Amino acid sequence: MRRLPTFGNRSAQRVLLHLTENKNLLREIITALHIIDEKAQKCDICCNIDVENPCYICRDERRNDSVICIVQDVNALWAMEKAHAFKGKYHVLGGLLSALNNVTPTSLPIEQLLSRIANDSVKEIIIGIGATLDGQVTSHYISGIIAKNNYNIKVSKIAFGIPMGGDLDYMDESTLKVALEMRTNVTPV
Amino acid sequence: MRRLPTFGNRSAQRVLLHLTENKNLLREIITALHIIDEKAQKCDICCNIDVENPCYICRDERRNDSVICIVQDVNALWAMEKAHAFKGKYHVLGGLLSALNNVTPTSLPIEQLLSRIANDSVKEIIIGIGATLDGQVTSHYISGIIAKNNYNIKVSKIAFGIPMGGDLDYMDESTLKVALEMRTNVTPV
Repeated sequence: MRRLPTFGNRSAQRVLLHLTENKNLLREIITALHIIDEKAQKCDICCNIDVENPCYICRDERRNDSVICIVQDVNALWAMEKAHAFKGKYHVLGGLLSALNNVTPTSLPIEQLLSRIANDSVKEIIIGIGATLDGQVTSHYISGIIAKNNYNIKVSKIAFGIPMGGDLDYMDESTLKVALEMRTNVTPV
Repeated sequence: MRRLPTFGNRSAQRVLLHLTENKNLLREIITALHIIDEKAQKCDICCNIDVENPCYICRDERRNDSVICIVQDVNALWAMEKAHAFKGKYHVLGGLLSALNNVTPTSLPIEQLLSRIANDSVKEIIIGIGATLDGQVTSHYISGIIAKNNYNIKVSKIAFGIPMGGDLDYMDESTLKVALEMRTNVTPV
């Protein structure tokens, strides 16, 4: 248990003791973990993880096929879904290019992305990757390779700036800089 | 001391004991506070606080006169200056419109802003106010009143979105929404 993310010694102990005292919960969790073991798999289309393949998002016909949002991982996809912010399809990279961690373009599902663009009726790719160092390298690589292939689609990236509700004097310097650089015109109503 | 912001009982005690044991520091601080008492004043032009009037930013001839960034308070101005993000002039509101706190447009230096726009060679107003509820109301009011006066200048606002280095799955829903809505085109290099 201690080898799991977010768990320390103490929380692992607390959880295990709780499960020992609540056998019903323990059995429910065992069953759920079995299902994950047997059924959870990467979606062949977007690399999201689901118990069915293609995943529930790729199967959803109410979603807009013509916009694909590229996200770093399933966590980011879940965050987007929770926000109800996006009604298109996703492409889950499952990682970011990183020289340090030896992640190269071939270890990410970039080829899959390109064939989706080539075959489907994709009109826009939104790069929904955070502005960390690896994130920026990855965004740059992806926009570059799409441009090189002349797909004639729109490529955009999510906006960077001050988060909603955020106070300017708590912002780091690079966020303030980008917020000024990327400022938008105000059209009065 | 406890009545100061950021001070609690414990930190007030610790600071006062430290000052009692370091009389030189104590005297330096007394002198500095005297200077603030005697000299610190609002700049007649931008409402920044400085020991001289006009303030060091309004006097600085290397700064661009034609762009004014409206900020909520001196804290926000200091944050911008620390980031070296902006080379124009400021206009410090000293507060935000708030029905709850009874702050109305007349309690903010809006008239002063309008006369700066009317008299100086201002080409752009950047609304550099955070997207809190009061912040949005204030931004809206200011852009509205500038539009009503037909000054024929550009009005922009700082960008809202994911902060630099931020991970998507730590973002709140409204930030994710605005990051998608305000997405920008990627021009490949």
